[in-house]
Amino acid sequence: MPKQVDHYQRKVEIAKATWKVIVEEGLEKATVRKVAKAAGFSVGSLRHYFPTQSELLRFSMELVFDRINQRFQTKHYQGSPLEVLTEIFQELLPTNEEKRVETEVWFVFLGKALVDPNLKDLADKLYTEMHKAIRMIVHRLQAEGLLKEQIDPIIEANRLHSLIDGIAINHLCYPHLFPLEDVLRTLQYHLQSMIQPVGLDHQATTSTVEKEKS
Amino acid sequence: MPKQVDHYQRKVEIAKATWKVIVEEGLEKATVRKVAKAAGFSVGSLRHYFPTQSELLRFSMELVFDRINQRFQTKHYQGSPLEVLTEIFQELLPTNEEKRVETEVWFVFLGKALVDPNLKDLADKLYTEMHKAIRMIVHRLQAEGLLKEQIDPIIEANRLHSLIDGIAINHLCYPHLFPLEDVLRTLQYHLQSMIQPVGLDHQATTSTVEKEKS
Repeated sequence: MPKQVDHYQRKVEIAKATWKVIVEEGLEKATVRKVAKAAGFSVGSLRHYFPTQSELLRFSMELVFDRINQRFQTKHYQGSPLEVLTEIFQELLPTNEEKRVETEVWFVFLGKALVDPNLKDLADKLYTEMHKAIRMIVHRLQAEGLLKEQIDPIIEANRLHSLIDGIAINHLCYPHLFPLEDVLRTLQYHLQSMIQPVGLDHQATTSTVEKEKS
Repeated sequence: MPKQVDHYQRKVEIAKATWKVIVEEGLEKATVRKVAKAAGFSVGSLRHYFPTQSELLRFSMELVFDRINQRFQTKHYQGSPLEVLTEIFQELLPTNEEKRVETEVWFVFLGKALVDPNLKDLADKLYTEMHKAIRMIVHRLQAEGLLKEQIDPIIEANRLHSLIDGIAINHLCYPHLFPLEDVLRTLQYHLQSMIQPVGLDHQATTSTVEKEKS
């Protein structure tokens, strides 16, 4: 189905042009006319892919999460539990330029969703999916005996989700006050506070925890 | 100096009308004309208080933090360390309608600051002040022997600051998915994870920790 693939690829191209306008000039400037120009499309051909601005914005917001999912699905994780967890949650943080753009776009859309019912239900759906994934990770850690005993997995998932979002936003908005080095230390410190000091992952020869102890 | 007080009070009134427009329609609608109408001022008299839109927006953003400060200064905190900490950090969360408006306004301004240098330096200044206050609280807990021993106060302050921001945003944006009850449990769970299980505050007859243990 090369035609369908093409159609989706064109939509992704347009959505990325939308991101570019949002990051450079703000969401209110992301009109169909401006996005068409940034993507190198005529307004008419853009309308072929996105009949309304509302559809354009929804697709552009959803693409942030689709890309996170794609990265998770194609990545192979290995190492100690702490290393694997750190890699997973780092994926959600703006640790490089590509993810910085995605985080900024997500943040701006989230602000817009507060006053735009068209984006509100999509924001809810994406939050719910992300929260389920985080809760599943915490439950799996518990099932494998990797969580510290006193931990409440439900509250822990709420705390982890909120912390990841807060770290992402603070690094995005104040990169020189909360630099990447501090982001990664804070993330690892938190993950370490959740799990048993000695990992049970037999594949890992030296865990990060052990390295830090020596 | 009743005239100066009046001048400041008028500015606060106008800033609150700006908040109202932002919360109801979004920041891009907060033009001088629209805010003047919402505040019951003519455009000319609004210009007397805020010669430019830029000054209006800066003052409206700064007012969020001024009000948090005012509340801290007028409030008397008492109880166990956990109770006092919970009360302090609850102050930063959108736990009632008034604070929900403030959080939303702050969130929207923060998004705008990403593309508006006029707001960027103010956002940096306010983040720095807030971070200093949080770091001071963590250091004071440590000095009083209330922090758990393994805690790193610098990373702990980064973690607490990011968590508070993440909790605030998640509750603001998804109140039915992350309701107030979960917000407060998550906050208290986190604070409890930082401090020694038995409080040293002799004024408190029964601390929350003790209540929960019984």
